[in-house]
Amino acid sequence: MSIGVLGSERADEEALKVAQEVGRGIAEKGAILICGGRRGVMEAAAKGCREAMGISIGILPSLDKSEGNEYLDIVIPTSMGYGRNILVASASDVVIAVDGHYGTLSEAAFALNYGRPVVVIVGTGGTADFLAGGPYDVHEATDAKEAVDKAIRLAKSRKK
Amino acid sequence: MSIGVLGSERADEEALKVAQEVGRGIAEKGAILICGGRRGVMEAAAKGCREAMGISIGILPSLDKSEGNEYLDIVIPTSMGYGRNILVASASDVVIAVDGHYGTLSEAAFALNYGRPVVVIVGTGGTADFLAGGPYDVHEATDAKEAVDKAIRLAKSRKK
Amino acid sequence: MSIGVLGSERADEEALKVAQEVGRGIAEKGAILICGGRRGVMEAAAKGCREAMGISIGILPSLDKSEGNEYLDIVIPTSMGYGRNILVASASDVVIAVDGHYGTLSEAAFALNYGRPVVVIVGTGGTADFLAGGPYDVHEATDAKEAVDKAIRLAKSRKK
Amino acid sequence: MSIGVLGSERADEEALKVAQEVGRGIAEKGAILICGGRRGVMEAAAKGCREAMGISIGILPSLDKSEGNEYLDIVIPTSMGYGRNILVASASDVVIAVDGHYGTLSEAAFALNYGRPVVVIVGTGGTADFLAGGPYDVHEATDAKEAVDKAIRLAKSRKK
Repeated sequence: MSIGVLGSERADEEALKVAQEVGRGIAEKGAILICGGRRGVMEAAAKGCREAMGISIGILPSLDKSEGNEYLDIVIPTSMGYGRNILVASASDVVIAVDGHYGTLSEAAFALNYGRPVVVIVGTGGTADFLAGGPYDVHEATDAKEAVDKAIRLAKSRKK
Repeated sequence: MSIGVLGSERADEEALKVAQEVGRGIAEKGAILICGGRRGVMEAAAKGCREAMGISIGILPSLDKSEGNEYLDIVIPTSMGYGRNILVASASDVVIAVDGHYGTLSEAAFALNYGRPVVVIVGTGGTADFLAGGPYDVHEATDAKEAVDKAIRLAKSRKK
Repeated sequence: MSIGVLGSERADEEALKVAQEVGRGIAEKGAILICGGRRGVMEAAAKGCREAMGISIGILPSLDKSEGNEYLDIVIPTSMGYGRNILVASASDVVIAVDGHYGTLSEAAFALNYGRPVVVIVGTGGTADFLAGGPYDVHEATDAKEAVDKAIRLAKSRKK
Repeated sequence: MSIGVLGSERADEEALKVAQEVGRGIAEKGAILICGGRRGVMEAAAKGCREAMGISIGILPSLDKSEGNEYLDIVIPTSMGYGRNILVASASDVVIAVDGHYGTLSEAAFALNYGRPVVVIVGTGGTADFLAGGPYDVHEATDAKEAVDKAIRLAKSRKK
């Protein structure tokens, strides 16, 4: 089971803390963490994943593995620029959005296109809050724990 | 100059009428119309473009050119599925959203990622209205004419 | 009908002359020329196409339209790096290879994957000559005129 | 370190045996195996990898994880069709070709475009033998063991 974590390279301390908890929670559930491989929310999530000895995969914009953050277990360079965002969505069974900006919006939109459920953590700001108030079929959570629980449940029900 | 028109395969009569006017307006300004090449808003826009003897390009999900609507001048098959949405964004200098659902959201998000201005026609529903009320840097228009005028102006100022 | 022209950014005078003739021939047949949009064989083909008042499309690696050569009519930026080579193949009904190196090899290979016939001009060197001697199902031509004639015929028979 | 294994869905017993040894060798060296995730050479390599308790990643054409073979540890769906071949190349530090047809040719060509060394196992037929005799800068090996040793050495020297 693969859970994507979406969010910006630049996020405030509060959002980073939530992302780290999300990463830890994904690892504790035995799922694989998928992310865009760079800094900010992606790095915090990968760090949390490592703390719980989980496996994290970073899908990078460039061909250069060193662009990935230090907590990734597996790095997948793409040479597709922001276009790699479609792969963060397609590689995940479910995605969780923490805060976020344009990139997160594109990944969440692709997840919806691809039939992958989207969980947003309300109160983290940016794209997560924006999508929570919108017309799209997204799942709301109020903290990291609830988001991971919902994501795992949604991923399991997709598999059946 | 290339202007993208974003919107769903399924849209109501009102949105289709607006899309057709947008397509006509783009052609009258001498710009090239970019779209996803299928039915609904894409077809209506291409039809309007043809009425004004403009050039329209449809970027298709599949490898099969016959998937394109009948008003396209140039058809570009991709084999990338919904992933072709990133190309609708990258191929356009500016995009205009009419109504729309997940696909439109992904294209608008990619346009924002790529630094392409996004014009939304308020009142057409769906993604266009949703983005108008959001935190992202989109340009609002109230009808087809205003949208095309804004898009052309934005495309010209990007070129400088 | 869209005919792709494949070949390197760096090619000798002889290959460039052949590419220019290929571009002219495609335009004279009323087909659209597809290429990677940059210098060398791509530029020479686009130049020939323009001389015969045809339409050429360049599919660029980057998001920057100014990366395209000056003879293109329509420029499609992609942000996919060399990954854009898959689009040069998918956008063409048939491709013609003139000389060429790694990029040409990847485009010809994708054309074959996608069921697009590949015509190679024997004697131009590089990938074209390499593929002519190989186990793959490619069509050989000895000059620009023969290559264009074969490509048009193959494209027509695909459409039926 | 990630080593890609390239080869057809349909291959003879001899090639499958070599692919399985390659997969086992990659795992024994502690490298991650990257492949296209389907049958034939890809499945044999993943099987060998599992026998030696290594980690294998399959990058799939479709969005459907069940398209992957049963020996994969991590499955990455893409929705890019054959276009996913560019990711098999970009995700690998070095690739090894066993036999192969159009798909293998495209992956090897992209590896060359991306500056990833290509090792071909001579005598396995198809693309591997074809590239061995060509003008491109590929590395030849005569059996699975030599191929893996060369691939590991090339991957290490790329990292320095």
